[in-house]
Formats: sequence, C-alpha cells, structure tokens
Amino acid sequence: MQFIDGGVTAPEGFTANGMLCGIKAGRTKNDTALIYSEKPCTAAGVFTQNRVKAESVKLTKKHLENGKAQAVIANSGNANACTGAQGAENALRMAKAAAGVLGISPEDVVVCSTGVIGQQLPVEVIEKNIQTLKDGLSKKGHAEARTAIMTTDTHYKECAVETEIGGKKVRIGAMCKGSGMIHINLGTMLSFMTTDCAISSAMLEKALRMSIEGTYNCVSVDGDTSTNDTLTILANGMAGNAEIVSEGKDFDAFYEALNAINTQMAKKIAGDGEGATRLIECNVSGACDVPTARRLAKSVISSSLVKAAFFGKDANWGRILCAMGYSGEQFTPETTTVAFESAEGAQRTGFTDFVGEQTGKKTSITVFENGVPLNFDEDLAKKILSEDEVVINVTLKDGNACGTAWGCDLTYDYVKINGDYRT
Amino acid sequence: MQFIDGGVTAPEGFTANGMLCGIKAGRTKNDTALIYSEKPCTAAGVFTQNRVKAESVKLTKKHLENGKAQAVIANSGNANACTGAQGAENALRMAKAAAGVLGISPEDVVVCSTGVIGQQLPVEVIEKNIQTLKDGLSKKGHAEARTAIMTTDTHYKECAVETEIGGKKVRIGAMCKGSGMIHINLGTMLSFMTTDCAISSAMLEKALRMSIEGTYNCVSVDGDTSTNDTLTILANGMAGNAEIVSEGKDFDAFYEALNAINTQMAKKIAGDGEGATRLIECNVSGACDVPTARRLAKSVISSSLVKAAFFGKDANWGRILCAMGYSGEQFTPETTTVAFESAEGAQRTGFTDFVGEQTGKKTSITVFENGVPLNFDEDLAKKILSEDEVVINVTLKDGNACGTAWGCDLTYDYVKINGDYRT
Repeated sequence: MQFIDGGVTAPEGFTANGMLCGIKAGRTKNDTALIYSEKPCTAAGVFTQNRVKAESVKLTKKHLENGKAQAVIANSGNANACTGAQGAENALRMAKAAAGVLGISPEDVVVCSTGVIGQQLPVEVIEKNIQTLKDGLSKKGHAEARTAIMTTDTHYKECAVETEIGGKKVRIGAMCKGSGMIHINLGTMLSFMTTDCAISSAMLEKALRMSIEGTYNCVSVDGDTSTNDTLTILANGMAGNAEIVSEGKDFDAFYEALNAINTQMAKKIAGDGEGATRLIECNVSGACDVPTARRLAKSVISSSLVKAAFFGKDANWGRILCAMGYSGEQFTPETTTVAFESAEGAQRTGFTDFVGEQTGKKTSITVFENGVPLNFDEDLAKKILSEDEVVINVTLKDGNACGTAWGCDLTYDYVKINGDYRT
Repeated sequence: MQFIDGGVTAPEGFTANGMLCGIKAGRTKNDTALIYSEKPCTAAGVFTQNRVKAESVKLTKKHLENGKAQAVIANSGNANACTGAQGAENALRMAKAAAGVLGISPEDVVVCSTGVIGQQLPVEVIEKNIQTLKDGLSKKGHAEARTAIMTTDTHYKECAVETEIGGKKVRIGAMCKGSGMIHINLGTMLSFMTTDCAISSAMLEKALRMSIEGTYNCVSVDGDTSTNDTLTILANGMAGNAEIVSEGKDFDAFYEALNAINTQMAKKIAGDGEGATRLIECNVSGACDVPTARRLAKSVISSSLVKAAFFGKDANWGRILCAMGYSGEQFTPETTTVAFESAEGAQRTGFTDFVGEQTGKKTSITVFENGVPLNFDEDLAKKILSEDEVVINVTLKDGNACGTAWGCDLTYDYVKINGDYRT
C-alpha cells in the first residue's frame, strides 16, 4: 500500500468539480462541489449522532438505505439544519438538480451541507449553476471540489492511496472538511471517499465502521458534535478485482488502505482545528483494553485546560492526569508515567499535501513517573512544546492495550472565530 | 427563610480566620483559612468523582466517615494532588497542626487544598503560622477566610440564611471558591458550609446530596472536573432546635434554606468563571422529566461554541439546538422554542455581596418557535445579549418538567489565564 497524489478522483471512473454559486454573501472561495462516478457504485455512510440532524443528512441516510449511489453534491456556507419542511424540500431540490444534469436518479445522489445553522438554503443559486458545475467535471476537478466544502478550515484536506487486491491495482481517494464543532462521535464533519475497488455495500459499511473508531472518532477540536457530520464512500468496482463480499485477505488489504487514509484525514482535521497553532497527539499505552486507552487519550485532548496549557507551551502535566481522572475510565494513577515528545521542525499534518513520517530529531522529556512528579528541565520542556506537533505519551501498567487521539490547542483565535461566526 | 449578612461565622458558635502563610511565591492575598466550632459537630461532605483525587480529599473522606468534625483547614496556591506518599503525609500534617492548636483530635479536622497540581505542598509554612491563625479566630474572621481559598476567582463567594425550625432560629452559612476546572459532577470546587442547626449526620448528608443535584451539579465553566472538589457542612446544634433525625416539616425547612444558599453559590461560581464577561442561565421547561431537563440545560451552557457566541453577543441559536442534540437526551426538535431574555443593568451574581431578584426591566426575544427559525430583530437581540446576565429559555412540548443550569461565556481571558497558570 502506498500514498499517491490526488484525492476523490484518484480512483478509476471518478470525476469532480467545484464552483462558487453564491450561497453566502461575501464568500470568494468555491461553495458547491460535485463528485460523479461513470458507473453506479455500492455505497455506505456514517452520520452524526446528534439528535438534531440537518435536512441533507436525513435525505442522504434515506438515499443510502439501498447501499447504492453514483454522485455527491455538497455545499458550504449553509448547514440546512433546523430549517423545517422548507429545508427538507431544498435538500431534495439539490439532489434533483444534480440528478437532472447527470441523467441519473435523485435517489442515487448523496446530498451534504455545511455552514451556519438555522437559515434557509438559497437552493436556486445551485439550480442556476448546476449545468456549469456538471460541464466542468474532470479528473483534475478534485482541486476545485476540495475547496468548495471548506468553512473555517485554513487548508483543504485530501488524501489518496493505492494498494493491490486480488492481483489488481485498487485506489481509494478522499476529501474532507472540519475545523470547529468537532468532537469524537460516530461520523465526523463532511468526508467524501471514493474507490474503484469492487466491494459489496455490506463489506464497505463494515470497513467504514471499523475504521472510524480509531480515526475520526478519536478527534476532538471543541467538544461540539455537529448537526451535519457525514462520511460517505462510493465504490464503482472499476479496478476489476473480484468483488469483496466477505472477510479475508482482500478485505484486509482494502481495510488497511482505507484506515491509512482515515488516520491521515483525522490528523489533518485536528491539526487544522479552529484557531489552532499546534497538533496534539496523545498516545496511551499499557491500558487494560483498547476502548479504555482511546477514551483516556480522548479525555486528555478534549480538556480545555490541557488545550490552553499547550497554547501557552506550559508543561502543566497535572491537567493531563486530571483529565484522565474524570474520563470515567479505569487506570491506576500510582503507576502512571507521562512524557512529552516532539520532532524538530515537525509540521501539523494537513499543512502540506501529505506528511508521512516526521524527519526531524525527536526529543522527549518525562515529567511524571510511576505516580511521582519529577524535577524536570523546564527550558527543555518549553522547547519541546514549542513545535507545531507535540505528542503526549502516557504509559500505564494496567495491561497491554494502546490508543491514540488527536486534538489541538485552545487559542485566542478560537474564541475570535466563534464569537462572531454567524454575522 | 431570609438571606442575612455574613458567611461561615453567621451560625452560633462558629469562628474563622485567614492569613498569608506563603504557600506560593508572589501571592499577596491570604492563602490559609481556618474555621472552628466551639462545640463538636455532625458533619457531611461530597467530593470530586475524579479518579485522581488530591491527598487532602482522600484524608478528609476518611475523617468524615464517622459523621463528625469540628474544624476546617484549607489552603490555596497548591492542590496537593498527584503528590504521592509525601503529599499524603503533608495533608496529615495540616490536620495535626490545626488539631494541635485547637486542642481537638486530628480526625475531627477537614483538610482541603486548591491550586496547582503536581507540586509538593510546603506544609512547614502552615505549621509555622498555625498558632497566629488560631489566635485570630473571630466572628468577623469570615472576611479573612473567604479570600484565603481564592485562586483565579476575581470575587469572594459567601452567603448566609436564617430560618425557623421547631420554633428556634437556625442559621446556615457558606463560603466557596471556584473559577476554572469546573464542571457538573458530584461535588464542586471547595465549598464550606456551617450551621447551628441540630441535625443528625445522616440527615445532613441526605440534605446535601439532594441539594447539589440542582445547584452545584448544574454549573459548568470549562468542562473540566477538578481533582480537589469538596463540599462539606458542619452542624453544631447550638440553635437549640430538637435534633432533626428524619424527614418531615423540620427537615423541609432546613433543606429549603440549604438549597437557597447552594443555588446562590452555584450562580456565583458560574458568573465568576475564568475570564467570563457574563453569566449564562439556561432554563429548559416542558421536558419529559427533571434529569432530562437539567442535562439538556447543562449541555447548552457547556458548549464551547455557545459560550464563544455569547462572548461575541451573537444570537447564534443554532448552536443551542446543536448542543441539546448531542446531549444524548430525549426531546423533539420539531416542537422546540428558544428565546433570549435579560434584565437591564442585571449584574452577575457574585459581584455584589448578594443579589436577590433583578430589578431592571426584562426584555425577551423569541428566535426559534415550534421547530421553525423566526426572522427576529438582530439589534434587539444584540442589546439583550449585551447584559451581564443572560437567560436562555428553551420551551419543549415533551412533558412538564423543568431544569436550570448556569455557565459563562468563553473569552480571550480564559485562554490567557490558562495558557500560563502554572508558572
């Protein structure tokens, strides 16, 4: 398996485009994206667990019930959530507009929206421009589509991999957005995946659900779960492999590739959290089981106090212990060890097209060992905490399980961005 | 029942004092408080549910097992948490120091600490000053004690009430601290209550546990639950009423008075949240049951996005619906109504000695009605949101239960205070 250039159009048979339709006054970036597969796809999706669901989410859930889809239309600038019957009609009009120009059924269109909650979507601007949007579909169009779904994101987020399944080259591509209102939960912000792998919708959904537990569900920016979170994948089978219909070697290879993308995308979202200046990764090892390790790690990177300390480059490790303590999870404080680690010149993932392994010299400092605070070198700690990507290594002696979660620091800019987002 | 002047020394037989012992470099406010009852007391306490507990919390839990106590010693500037065996010894030395000068048993001393986590407490500065602290015990000393427990609090927090039980005047007094690392959980930050009511320790604990559910447990500043949260009450029986040993009219009168204090103290803590510029109260009515109403209200005032919007005076009500949606609680978005309300010149509770009913003219604006967004007057909304105390009224049609929670806005100053608290 290897990472390759591109995003949602990297797999065979997929094209994409994006343009500015004029959904929100003042926006200069693209605001509407279209993804299309020349062949019908098996499809799967996971969605927000928020009881308040966007109208687009309700529609897309219905459209994916039969495990099939062929296109995605998505807009930014308006979430189409808390918009009642008119919102539901507007979501359906988006599906019909896309289906009309593509010559497919509206039921085979995935519809997504992101942006401000509680304002009616001016769907007519999409209808007016849909033909132009369709006419521009191309292999290169992933670069237009990926910016059309951004809201407060400072960088677009996309990724693609290639692997071999049943003797055939198979590709998976993805683009996503997400910067605020992000918290560990089933689903994430908007993420669109494509693949030319031949795989049944049941196995596609299985792979997706398995993978999100340790990737998207291990990210938190601000503890808020959006009304619009959606992750979908369309598989058109054009790689020519024998269709994956059960677990086994082929499924494992597909899962490995899918999971590699989702891990990268999760880090990209955390690193580009609203107002963030650094990516925080928390690894918990020696836990009694994997869910415990992950929930402990999530509690640490979700803590406002931990996040503010990282903004201040303050090695305030007591807050890490405190956050683990109120997580509700089992661990033994008396045998816990905490260390900080960073690599020189490490860059937040998501700020380059793809960052693999960090290459700078790694430095680590242990601040709390077997339940006892250490006298540590404050200057060295400050230096480690000044890098753009900082790792918290928590070592327990409760078992052998590991888990990782990703977050970012809490900054003045987070408050600024969210103090006046709507107007 | 009526509110009266004073705090922990308002009940008969209680004296207090506070002084600066020098626990943390640079502090100029008092850092050590002592409260003493001339007669032995029945006593009860509730404590943090954080798995990582301060050494002082562990010791105090043990000391209250027999339902008896006679004094409280508390310090700020150091939490004595994550400090291992040495920390445990230091907590015991605090109890012994107080017991020694008061001529009582160390087991009858409540010990509490608050401040930075993970540094050893310089207990010798307390031992050196304990005689002076004891010599200064007086009725007026509540004014010295209340400042000695403050950390990032900008205002001290105390309250007292008088009521009649069994034909006798009974008083309850309290002082508390709490500004950051505050989140709904059993217990709160440090809160010390005193009363001259005669009441068994079992009924005292029952009243305390019933009361915190709708008061301290309905407050959130930042979603972080401290390692040191402690609420204790000492009852010395000097009011001369027949001892309350079961439920009934007397217990009800005591509970009403206790609950009135706790409600005020909860609002004082929320209004003085770290960096806060305004107190946010969320009332949920028409819910299916009380726990649901409270949890919905808590989810709203705990949301970073709601809190940031209030800082920006932005009527971004979509985030309120969103926060209710991810609370995990049952409600029907389609029949939900949301309104904002404030009173002219309303002051955050806690910024005066006691604020009863607000007197200014109340103004309200409905922004979302029966599941449909309204076109509302943005200027009027901004005016309402500009007051120091703002109420969110959420009306459901799911039942008849109500619940209230209190929080504050998320500001630049919260980030500033917590970006460099330790050093």
